[in-house]
Amino acid sequence: MTLPKNPSPDVGKLAKELRSGHRAALARAITLIESRRSDHQAAARDLVQALLSDTGKAVRVGITGSPGVGKSTTIDALGMFLIERGHKVAVLAVDPSSARTGGSILGDKTRMARVANSDSAFVRPSPSSGTLGGVAAKTREAMLLCEAAGFDVVLVETVGIGQSETAVCDMTDFFLALMLPGAGDELQGIKKGLVELADMIAINKADGDNVKRANLAAADYRSALHILSPRSEHWHPPVVTYSALTGTGMDTLWQKILDHRTAMNASGEFAARRREQQVKWMWSMLEQRMMARLRSDATIRAKVKKTEAEVADGRITPAVAAEQIAEWLR
Amino acid sequence: MTLPKNPSPDVGKLAKELRSGHRAALARAITLIESRRSDHQAAARDLVQALLSDTGKAVRVGITGSPGVGKSTTIDALGMFLIERGHKVAVLAVDPSSARTGGSILGDKTRMARVANSDSAFVRPSPSSGTLGGVAAKTREAMLLCEAAGFDVVLVETVGIGQSETAVCDMTDFFLALMLPGAGDELQGIKKGLVELADMIAINKADGDNVKRANLAAADYRSALHILSPRSEHWHPPVVTYSALTGTGMDTLWQKILDHRTAMNASGEFAARRREQQVKWMWSMLEQRMMARLRSDATIRAKVKKTEAEVADGRITPAVAAEQIAEWLR
Repeated sequence: MTLPKNPSPDVGKLAKELRSGHRAALARAITLIESRRSDHQAAARDLVQALLSDTGKAVRVGITGSPGVGKSTTIDALGMFLIERGHKVAVLAVDPSSARTGGSILGDKTRMARVANSDSAFVRPSPSSGTLGGVAAKTREAMLLCEAAGFDVVLVETVGIGQSETAVCDMTDFFLALMLPGAGDELQGIKKGLVELADMIAINKADGDNVKRANLAAADYRSALHILSPRSEHWHPPVVTYSALTGTGMDTLWQKILDHRTAMNASGEFAARRREQQVKWMWSMLEQRMMARLRSDATIRAKVKKTEAEVADGRITPAVAAEQIAEWLR
Repeated sequence: MTLPKNPSPDVGKLAKELRSGHRAALARAITLIESRRSDHQAAARDLVQALLSDTGKAVRVGITGSPGVGKSTTIDALGMFLIERGHKVAVLAVDPSSARTGGSILGDKTRMARVANSDSAFVRPSPSSGTLGGVAAKTREAMLLCEAAGFDVVLVETVGIGQSETAVCDMTDFFLALMLPGAGDELQGIKKGLVELADMIAINKADGDNVKRANLAAADYRSALHILSPRSEHWHPPVVTYSALTGTGMDTLWQKILDHRTAMNASGEFAARRREQQVKWMWSMLEQRMMARLRSDATIRAKVKKTEAEVADGRITPAVAAEQIAEWLR
């Protein structure tokens, strides 16, 4: 394909500033990406394309966990651990709008106060509206911009509602599931879908009186994971314990992420996963683009809603309905 | 929406014959559904639409298991168990073409000899070509035709390669995963994706010397499933043992399927799942339809392939690529 010959001057300037690590430029670029204006969207496409060769170098870690698990404090502790070792850390999020009525965790930067105030970190809340696919696509492009701006670790968090975990897994190299030791003897159930995605389970709050409980929980999760076939024969998801409060276990947690990277690089799965992810994003963006008219045209939207109800009620078949919607989109 | 006012006479006649339980008509109707000719496809849409009110009454069971687990003998044993109790049983399959080089299990009807020769059963191999989405959509419509023809139990098997298990789960009420007791102490790993889908795990070959081993395996699977959050609070997937060879455990196996139905009906999840499935099929068929041109037009296909490679190599962004493909489809 041919690249646009004359990217608008703004894009060229923005790309240059961003590449030099200019934080305000990075923030502005992400705002451009999140804009719904079609000229902004075109400029954003040019910008990401122009920066593409500067992307891909970060360790991309997806982090999920139910509310209350201590996700923000964990990201704060892990982020500071990394910054102290010379890393530049970007923190992004994919929160489907519907899940954010309780207030975005990332929006509340006070909960990750140290990282949020560090010059070596960049914290950006989730794009605030749109379909999950749209929100996730924007976060993925924000991640690329952070890489181009020199951030070498990107942490992408999600509250794990609906398909957002899959979306985050599809944009990261390593997917980390945070859990709590059970209250009393009760183990916290692992959501089924999560078992398929997680590259590691980490049990928080392994401090003070909780250490023993955390270790017991870890043993239980370990034996349960044992009978599941691993996604890769080169990586059996470990179960570790840590404390975001005291920082205990942060070193092991990070080392496992690096071990995974080493193993995946050795087997060739690292490059393969990145390639697959990129192609998958292409199809996902095409689908979003093609479905956009169904959402933006009020008349079509109403007709589709009615058709959906008729299909749900068993009055028309999915095939007849699909044929009809395709006609409206013609 | 308005239904086609003049369905072709063939469709009307076929629908009538099929509704009266005419086996040859059922076979012919499924062939019509599987045809790639566009006039046949239009007729097939009319046919399924015409029969829609006669569908939905069967117990729809998806069955998966790795090769060697005894899927065909299990279906034969379960099928005969049901036929002896007055049921009419249809057996269908979703096998992605790529998985069928070793010969379709269903194609080899001798492996389910009793069911294949029973007047109360109808056995149909998987549609033999097309994308997984296409194959699955055809099997789903074949299932509706079987229901209209009076079959009150539909068993849909899959070899479980790739996404075929999800597709079968999306067209059935109950998803059954067949396993073997381990050889020696080794438990057979459960594929991670399967854990999310399975409504029951059934361990075959619990006969002769194997009974103890099967029970031990069942206990292990049970404790592993225990720490996973169930999909429904009204159904915790049980683990049972049975023998397709001796017929031991067939009654429990079927009773669990009925128990699940009772529980799901009581909670309202049964109707909700069917409604969701129907809407999901509509979107899936729309997507297939819109993507069809990418596959059927050789020039576009070649360009898409090249673009995919460029995206995989990191030379162009998914957003730019999606924009370009959308232009070609315009």
